[in-house]
Amino acid sequence: MSKNNLLLLFDRPLETVIVPKGPNQIAFDVPVDLLSDRYKPIGMEVSNRFGEETKTKIPVPRLLNLIFIGMRDVDDLLAMAIYARERVNPYLFNYCFSVALLHRPDTQDLELPSFIGSFPDKYFDSQVFARAREEATVIPQERRQPIEVPIDYTASDLEIEHRLAYFREDLGINLHHWHWHLVYPFEGAMQVVNKNRRGELFYYMHQQIIARYNLERFCNNLKRVTRFNDWKEPIPEAYFPKLDSLVASRAWPSRVEDQTLSDLRREQDQITQDLDDLRRWRERIFEAIHSLAAQDANGQTIPLTEFEGIDVLGNMIESSMLSPNRNFYGDMHNMGHVFISYIHDPDHRHLENFGVMGDSATAMRDPIFYRWHAFIDDVFQQFKGSLPRYTEAQLNYPNITVTGVNIQSGNGPPNTLNTFWQQSDVDLSRGMDFQPRGNVLVRFTHLNHEPFSYNITINNASGGTKRGTCRIFLGPKVDERGAPWRFVDHRLLFIELDKFTVNLSQGANNITRNSTESSVTIPFERTFRNLDLNRPVGGAALSQFNFCGCGWPHHMLIPKGTPEGWQCQLFVMVSNFDDDQVVQDTAGTCNDAMSYCGIKDRLYPDKRSMGYPFDRMPRDNVSNLEEFLTPNMIVQDCIIKFTNTIRKPAQ
Amino acid sequence: MSKNNLLLLFDRPLETVIVPKGPNQIAFDVPVDLLSDRYKPIGMEVSNRFGEETKTKIPVPRLLNLIFIGMRDVDDLLAMAIYARERVNPYLFNYCFSVALLHRPDTQDLELPSFIGSFPDKYFDSQVFARAREEATVIPQERRQPIEVPIDYTASDLEIEHRLAYFREDLGINLHHWHWHLVYPFEGAMQVVNKNRRGELFYYMHQQIIARYNLERFCNNLKRVTRFNDWKEPIPEAYFPKLDSLVASRAWPSRVEDQTLSDLRREQDQITQDLDDLRRWRERIFEAIHSLAAQDANGQTIPLTEFEGIDVLGNMIESSMLSPNRNFYGDMHNMGHVFISYIHDPDHRHLENFGVMGDSATAMRDPIFYRWHAFIDDVFQQFKGSLPRYTEAQLNYPNITVTGVNIQSGNGPPNTLNTFWQQSDVDLSRGMDFQPRGNVLVRFTHLNHEPFSYNITINNASGGTKRGTCRIFLGPKVDERGAPWRFVDHRLLFIELDKFTVNLSQGANNITRNSTESSVTIPFERTFRNLDLNRPVGGAALSQFNFCGCGWPHHMLIPKGTPEGWQCQLFVMVSNFDDDQVVQDTAGTCNDAMSYCGIKDRLYPDKRSMGYPFDRMPRDNVSNLEEFLTPNMIVQDCIIKFTNTIRKPAQ
Repeated sequence: MSKNNLLLLFDRPLETVIVPKGPNQIAFDVPVDLLSDRYKPIGMEVSNRFGEETKTKIPVPRLLNLIFIGMRDVDDLLAMAIYARERVNPYLFNYCFSVALLHRPDTQDLELPSFIGSFPDKYFDSQVFARAREEATVIPQERRQPIEVPIDYTASDLEIEHRLAYFREDLGINLHHWHWHLVYPFEGAMQVVNKNRRGELFYYMHQQIIARYNLERFCNNLKRVTRFNDWKEPIPEAYFPKLDSLVASRAWPSRVEDQTLSDLRREQDQITQDLDDLRRWRERIFEAIHSLAAQDANGQTIPLTEFEGIDVLGNMIESSMLSPNRNFYGDMHNMGHVFISYIHDPDHRHLENFGVMGDSATAMRDPIFYRWHAFIDDVFQQFKGSLPRYTEAQLNYPNITVTGVNIQSGNGPPNTLNTFWQQSDVDLSRGMDFQPRGNVLVRFTHLNHEPFSYNITINNASGGTKRGTCRIFLGPKVDERGAPWRFVDHRLLFIELDKFTVNLSQGANNITRNSTESSVTIPFERTFRNLDLNRPVGGAALSQFNFCGCGWPHHMLIPKGTPEGWQCQLFVMVSNFDDDQVVQDTAGTCNDAMSYCGIKDRLYPDKRSMGYPFDRMPRDNVSNLEEFLTPNMIVQDCIIKFTNTIRKPAQ
Repeated sequence: MSKNNLLLLFDRPLETVIVPKGPNQIAFDVPVDLLSDRYKPIGMEVSNRFGEETKTKIPVPRLLNLIFIGMRDVDDLLAMAIYARERVNPYLFNYCFSVALLHRPDTQDLELPSFIGSFPDKYFDSQVFARAREEATVIPQERRQPIEVPIDYTASDLEIEHRLAYFREDLGINLHHWHWHLVYPFEGAMQVVNKNRRGELFYYMHQQIIARYNLERFCNNLKRVTRFNDWKEPIPEAYFPKLDSLVASRAWPSRVEDQTLSDLRREQDQITQDLDDLRRWRERIFEAIHSLAAQDANGQTIPLTEFEGIDVLGNMIESSMLSPNRNFYGDMHNMGHVFISYIHDPDHRHLENFGVMGDSATAMRDPIFYRWHAFIDDVFQQFKGSLPRYTEAQLNYPNITVTGVNIQSGNGPPNTLNTFWQQSDVDLSRGMDFQPRGNVLVRFTHLNHEPFSYNITINNASGGTKRGTCRIFLGPKVDERGAPWRFVDHRLLFIELDKFTVNLSQGANNITRNSTESSVTIPFERTFRNLDLNRPVGGAALSQFNFCGCGWPHHMLIPKGTPEGWQCQLFVMVSNFDDDQVVQDTAGTCNDAMSYCGIKDRLYPDKRSMGYPFDRMPRDNVSNLEEFLTPNMIVQDCIIKFTNTIRKPAQ
């Protein structure tokens, strides 16, 4: 059996596996004992009903009682997966099966289908699905038109926070967040969880989300997001997700204005937790931070060191199973999500499910996500703020001078980035259980920007060839009041745009780098990939177009800007490669969004602390960005111009 | 064309009319100009796609530009209806088309399909529909099993108000309420709205709902429902309906704990109203009540008279277009529903629809419905309390003595009623748009009771034959504290069970009346009728099984009782027919649920004030029920025993 058949199990997650799957209507020849009780007596009959639509039948080996990740080979894995698929919650199946395929040596070259295809209900306005059902049932395939989703459907401009909906509800951003937590689960098999610097990456990836969110807020005339740290205060920002869970056949609960957290007493979910626990964990974490030492389960002291401490802290705060002491430091970040997600029904009396904050696929839609993570980030920053400041020697690259940088976008004026609305299509049909086959496209509108390039000139006066790491960040020019920044605040608002190795010949070097090469993002096509079109076939091509749904969506690389042009600062630094380098082979694996996602099965490919050089307080006498610069850094003022037009999808 | 084809337009309300309708897959041969723009270019093609399933084609005449109720004949009506159906909101279409069919002389003998069939989403847990879709798609017709809905799905017993969910969420009760407002719309064509005593019936039908609800509360160890009259206080009773609107593709919004009403500023819905308006209307209505006079739009005084005043007041409070002055007395009851239904999004910033309180098909599910209507009823009672008390002469029937009454249920002990849980099936398939055909049964659980009969002995000492109206009510024996009732409170808690004419020979008369003959209820089969089974064919049979979804569901005639036997009092009165009689021919029309619904196109068939003899304060020196009795009345203590078992559906 071809292992590609495994991927058919992601198709139509609510439908029994007896019903043929995939665009070619491939049927599994399923032994009766794999079926759930409902289908056991009628399996053959149901299977035959779909016989005429079926083109191929795949023999399914008898079930072996093993779990996915331990299954002997691909055939056994398929049997086990089918058995589980007929019985467990479809989300759970998808998650477990995805983790297994990603981590098994014999399946990790498979390209997982886009999560959005299996569970479009987590990403699209519930109204899409009735229209899609109508389209699929009534309109012949060749006459179907894409179903257009309005950009504003969760709220109106009466709600100030709605200005950020294009960011919070962006499909790519939410897919990135889901994939990140899929790649970095906080619990599970040790070889899956214990990835290089995962705790630090938890800190850094979320810090960057908050920085990016704040930049978008500036572009929309809003101040930085307010930390949610008083857990007794009502939450003024409401959120009505307007999503239906197709699996639960329930709407995702809304969060109305001015609700307040409560102790949780959801016994059936085995969630009983007091808000006092959350406060207690916070105080203990602060104690560890302020004494630069944690205590493990045996009462031993674990120092929170200059470079590794942040990784310990990330696992402690998230928390992951790598936390030094989950019993003592608790589960602060995760339980914050849980408290918020049950705010409407804390004791389960109304039999309500959790809200969007309870699921990594949907949490970033809710304004409270950013208030919560602003709090979490602030805790990390308390630690970072207490570390030794970078000396000039740690920042500078002797004899390397960045002499100039500019951005060029098309034929426009230099240092001007251009953003606009873009429409794109996604095919829903794989997630449309119990519907006729054929594509059903949804057309949605998202932010996008013109491609651009960085032109960097670097002088190498070292007398020989040098290598460096070019680090590109973007930050705001002025604060909310239009006043200049103090570096201590400014540094927290720099978003990473790219990071790459440069080889520097003697003398002047001109480096050109395209925006699409960003180490932060994955290409548009991968975020919204259509499995059935343009798929590279086998081998090297397949591995290049490999798994890595993890990655900031390229269309969101640049903040929205403003019609008059939002003032920002491009920061470029070339650091000493000797202090950056991690020696490993990264060829062939998905490594194009390493900044926020790392590289699969490899070490994090930058030896510096994540966020370097902005992750610490500045050295003495540095009060603003200008004073912070060493010769291997440069700052260039830029503007981001937003044009309020909608471009049609590329054909 | 047979006018029965009109009824096919109720089938699958979201599907274009091009797709064949009804179990026999009858297609309309639709001229292109009736179709909506989406289907115009592909009408023929779509129509042909379904050709093989189609058995008959009905020619649709060209559109005439008329509205439903004014259409010349049935053919024109069909054309107009198809045109509208393709364009307007399906609920709106259903409502308008239903009203038209009910009121046109040439269509009023049509039996409208059950509303629950067209819009099952207003009555069933949203989870049913995914399961139904699975059943319809995957399981062959003959192997399908009913989908069981649990009786508790909106909340758990942690929520005290959930004890009443079986009543609030009863399908029959909600269908009754929807039908009542369909038969008695508050706006529309004058000949439709201006029905005999509609304002009074608005008062009485809702008064009885509150009385019935309070009796159910007693059976569940709860005190009477608390009026909602402080509109600034948070509402502690939350409600999470767990219904999806299939038309809007949105969940019905939830109402969380402790929300507070706000001024409405929903400009797009053209609803801008202040809570102060509601208060102002209330004060003016009280002023009219306390001065026994209203003022009309011309400043003329309309006295609120002893017998007709309640009808004026009903239209004023509801309000209907028959209100003496809507500008001055406003729209209190209706706007109360609206204020509550938008409590979660009063200025539409979150683009949310109204909650269940905003729709007569769903309002009775929410605990706040009863708190609101307890307030409304209290306003009516302030008026009723100020009317002249009934004299003994107005109550007594000289020479007629009710000498005994008992209830017999099966072979059980006398005066013991028996209740239990009953399962019943409803076919969803007519409301399952865009799905394969074939029945999909939903099995739900509701209260029911053993049939019983009243055995009444009446002595006629008048020396001749007499006619009387036998009025049967049921009330609680003791109050919430177990204490005896004062009549002024007790009288508000009597629920009508039956009302019928008796002919009394001289001397002793033994009257036996079956519970199923109740003038309050419609038979179980009509509440949940399956159009396609057991339908009488044409003429007299059809008119007996005619329109009248309006009527309390028979299975809810009797309160739930308690396992140990809930103590209640049966009240029987025989009133003087001379003062009751309304001379009219009521044969052939639906007249078996006249107490709460009247008789279609006839006068209300009882000349007395509705609620008689309990609708007024008692005469002097009457402090309890015993003292209230005249010889033509009798009271019998009874008990209602609830058995907590679930009976399977009758086959």
